[in-house]
Amino acid sequence: MRILFLGDIVGRVGREAVISRLPGLRAELSLDLVVVNGENASHGFGLSPAIGQDLFNAGADVITLGNHSWDRRDMIGHIDAEPRIIRPANYPPGTPGQGSVVVPLVNGHKALVISVMGRQFMDAMDDPFRAVSDILSRHRLGVTVQAIIVDVHAEATSEKWAMGHVCDGRVSLVIGTHTHTPTADHRIFPKGTAFQTDAGMCGDYDSVIGMGKDAAIARFVRKMPGERLQPAEGDASIAGMMVETDDATGLARRMAPVRLGGHLAQTMPDF
Amino acid sequence: MRILFLGDIVGRVGREAVISRLPGLRAELSLDLVVVNGENASHGFGLSPAIGQDLFNAGADVITLGNHSWDRRDMIGHIDAEPRIIRPANYPPGTPGQGSVVVPLVNGHKALVISVMGRQFMDAMDDPFRAVSDILSRHRLGVTVQAIIVDVHAEATSEKWAMGHVCDGRVSLVIGTHTHTPTADHRIFPKGTAFQTDAGMCGDYDSVIGMGKDAAIARFVRKMPGERLQPAEGDASIAGMMVETDDATGLARRMAPVRLGGHLAQTMPDF
Amino acid sequence: MRILFLGDIVGRVGREAVISRLPGLRAELSLDLVVVNGENASHGFGLSPAIGQDLFNAGADVITLGNHSWDRRDMIGHIDAEPRIIRPANYPPGTPGQGSVVVPLVNGHKALVISVMGRQFMDAMDDPFRAVSDILSRHRLGVTVQAIIVDVHAEATSEKWAMGHVCDGRVSLVIGTHTHTPTADHRIFPKGTAFQTDAGMCGDYDSVIGMGKDAAIARFVRKMPGERLQPAEGDASIAGMMVETDDATGLARRMAPVRLGGHLAQTMPDF
Amino acid sequence: MRILFLGDIVGRVGREAVISRLPGLRAELSLDLVVVNGENASHGFGLSPAIGQDLFNAGADVITLGNHSWDRRDMIGHIDAEPRIIRPANYPPGTPGQGSVVVPLVNGHKALVISVMGRQFMDAMDDPFRAVSDILSRHRLGVTVQAIIVDVHAEATSEKWAMGHVCDGRVSLVIGTHTHTPTADHRIFPKGTAFQTDAGMCGDYDSVIGMGKDAAIARFVRKMPGERLQPAEGDASIAGMMVETDDATGLARRMAPVRLGGHLAQTMPDF
Ligand SMILES: [Fe+2]
Ligand SMILES: [Fe+2]
Ligand SMILES: [Fe+2]
Ligand SMILES: [Fe+2]
Ligand SMILES: [Fe+2]
Ligand SMILES: [Fe+2]
Ligand SMILES: [Fe+2]
Ligand SMILES: [Fe+2]
Repeated sequence: MRILFLGDIVGRVGREAVISRLPGLRAELSLDLVVVNGENASHGFGLSPAIGQDLFNAGADVITLGNHSWDRRDMIGHIDAEPRIIRPANYPPGTPGQGSVVVPLVNGHKALVISVMGRQFMDAMDDPFRAVSDILSRHRLGVTVQAIIVDVHAEATSEKWAMGHVCDGRVSLVIGTHTHTPTADHRIFPKGTAFQTDAGMCGDYDSVIGMGKDAAIARFVRKMPGERLQPAEGDASIAGMMVETDDATGLARRMAPVRLGGHLAQTMPDF
Repeated sequence: MRILFLGDIVGRVGREAVISRLPGLRAELSLDLVVVNGENASHGFGLSPAIGQDLFNAGADVITLGNHSWDRRDMIGHIDAEPRIIRPANYPPGTPGQGSVVVPLVNGHKALVISVMGRQFMDAMDDPFRAVSDILSRHRLGVTVQAIIVDVHAEATSEKWAMGHVCDGRVSLVIGTHTHTPTADHRIFPKGTAFQTDAGMCGDYDSVIGMGKDAAIARFVRKMPGERLQPAEGDASIAGMMVETDDATGLARRMAPVRLGGHLAQTMPDF
Repeated sequence: MRILFLGDIVGRVGREAVISRLPGLRAELSLDLVVVNGENASHGFGLSPAIGQDLFNAGADVITLGNHSWDRRDMIGHIDAEPRIIRPANYPPGTPGQGSVVVPLVNGHKALVISVMGRQFMDAMDDPFRAVSDILSRHRLGVTVQAIIVDVHAEATSEKWAMGHVCDGRVSLVIGTHTHTPTADHRIFPKGTAFQTDAGMCGDYDSVIGMGKDAAIARFVRKMPGERLQPAEGDASIAGMMVETDDATGLARRMAPVRLGGHLAQTMPDF
Repeated sequence: MRILFLGDIVGRVGREAVISRLPGLRAELSLDLVVVNGENASHGFGLSPAIGQDLFNAGADVITLGNHSWDRRDMIGHIDAEPRIIRPANYPPGTPGQGSVVVPLVNGHKALVISVMGRQFMDAMDDPFRAVSDILSRHRLGVTVQAIIVDVHAEATSEKWAMGHVCDGRVSLVIGTHTHTPTADHRIFPKGTAFQTDAGMCGDYDSVIGMGKDAAIARFVRKMPGERLQPAEGDASIAGMMVETDDATGLARRMAPVRLGGHLAQTMPDF
């Protein structure tokens, strides 16, 4: 199976970059599954139902969220009606929506996508390791599903690396989001799980993690409310990771980053 | 000027990788200046005077530290005697050592290296932006010094990006450390400053940010003291960034990552 | 039922004050139940089995712990053998010990004591509100147990007040620990639960929350390791709260602080 | 000199309680100086210029702020015109307003009032200990000013106790604010400085630190945006501390809490 994961889509330029490039990528890379993190797609804060639909129309199969899941209040009412949008699984019981979804693919294949949020330097969610473990206990990689993707939305690199190792051999890909910075540490772990600490952001990198520079800098330098944070509106990059898995085992065979447009060094898989 | 910066050296395998490879790299890449972050070189916690000397002998010109500056108590007494080891500049007044150093290079060139620590999700240090600004006010890039390197030792990507933009045009390179994860967002900013959110770690990446997997995972999963954290001891990578600057302006002309050995995808500058 | 709760016992002087005064108080106040927080009784960090026994011998019925539960490693092996020592209930499944205990009292009465830890500004434990709710679902105040005491070991006043209100009418007393500072906001809530944000510390208040002043101040002023924190060793106060409950309902009828010895303004219940 | 300090005034019922009671207290207690913390007076978030004027009219001499200083944007423009409203001194240079003020009193006496903010579990301000020390270096207690009051607006009890001890003998009163919970640990330190960890809140204590219970509890139990936090509107208490100082030395002779109205145990100084 050929899988593309794209990191946090930030604001108008981020989503326009994804929407314009994804159909071509889907064909060019013969993708079977596309997962995107959409938690910042609506003006940098949250995802609207309409933008979610635009991303599905462009070729996303699943949209993950994160700590900005509910910034758009209309997502609270919408998420139960759209199982392809998932929020972190370790919200407390009773939270709208689901933390994972099984999507049918071509050839009768199925993929399980899980969203989970870290706790280090973040809000006090339920235990992300148990949340993932609970979901995995209900599926079998290579048997009931042909691929499993875990989006670990977290601040601390240590927590993401720990999640990667805990999942090694049990999922196809553990990939981080939230820091809006792509990492160069992608690797297939010893037992066959592909890992990258952060997929990076789809948005304008001439910014402070996607937001306009001046307002963001002012927050660090002055300790007063200032200009509202607004997504930067220059040339956007899309950033993510492609993984090719073995359908018999669901484990990773090859992986390579995708970084196109904007200010990032450009790279595409050669497979 | 040709500059190499290597990220946090972790434990025995990290420092052995640096010490064995640095002399060759220095020659092969015609390096004029080598800066390494040594805050985890001694068993993962701090830098000993002897290990510092080993790193200088291998070709480092300056060693930067971070939040682990004083884990080895003997560094407290040693740092004032060794100005080439610098600790973050935004420690309070009266802290031993210095937060920056000017090192003489060949051809009568001089380079200023600054260490500074972020505050987001970290200890309450003095303002890092003012600390850097104060130091920069005493030097002129391209005039009094031919290169300026800022090691921004910080957790949050946003704080590092903000520091990069604030320094754009005033220094040669702003490079992050501390997360032990190399980022793929290196770029020369509009006014000529090279930037990378994190240089990555020199150590064993089959680990949790350089430390043994089991003990590190246990800290997230159980909430009890367990096994002591120990540096992982498998194949180490060295990770960092090479920058070529214009001696007349001190600004960056080219930059490319260096990642050698161990489990990382290998890369070397082609210039 | 007449209940005394004493806050965090800190170091030698704290435990000596408790051990010397508790037998007299037990008699003088006709106490039916004594609960003490012992997380700092052993040199300020943790509780040893032997000190636990000393506190039981002096008249404690139950000892609660907190974030320092495991500072003394011998408690890890001991706690399962001594059900009267409880650690916060919201540690993850598999943690040694229990988060609550039912103790038999005179007259065939029984009391349930619960320990729980907050998450605001603290480690990422399981949800304390669900943990308390789960335990309460297995007991009925005034029916299966005649009194229920909740020790909410937390940093943030807001989280403690929230826990108090959530428990109102369902338990006899919600009392905070951890800040080592007695609060003057004790009150019987509308539905009958007695509440105090923090019971305060049993220890030397001429200190920084029980530890020697100079070393503790240095931690704020300098950002370097310094002298080890040691419990202050001057005159100790004991600090806590007395509550009288109605045996038929288990709810609070009267409450009054107990503060004796040392530097605190002295106060004793007049009932 | 006879001094009254009142803690954080929260919302309409808090300010009405202060405004209605302060004129009577000023006469009854023969107060020379009244300082109130006003950071939550405007709907729980910030202080408006008009409410500031109401508090001055009711008898306040100085109003201190805290982390909510700028919640009301109109305070940013107003504070430079009203030196009797002070914000924490350890905001960065260039912040509007002042962190201290000397107010003239009857008999030619003068009092210095300082506001400062802690950093533990709070935003990364400048060093509060150096900020206070800098201000104190420009005054002499008992010589240039007859009283010095320090409002230490902080979350952690340890940081407040440390500030108290650092100031002992150099100021009349160190009093905490921000936790909205009065503490029962008031005491005159060995060198003559009166201290209380927190003055408490002027507001409705049948709440979660002054805000409506249901919305505040929901924030802990659910992890979603819910109802907006609104100040509770039931019976309000005023809470604070009275100190009598020696005009020759400026040090404290006597201190006693003031808690009137609402749900707190009532207490008034007997001197
Ligand atoms: Fe994001
Ligand atoms: Fe996020
Ligand atoms: Fe570090
Ligand atoms: Fe490090
Ligand atoms: Fe504690
Ligand atoms: Fe404690
Ligand atoms: Fe506050
Ligand atoms: Fe407040």
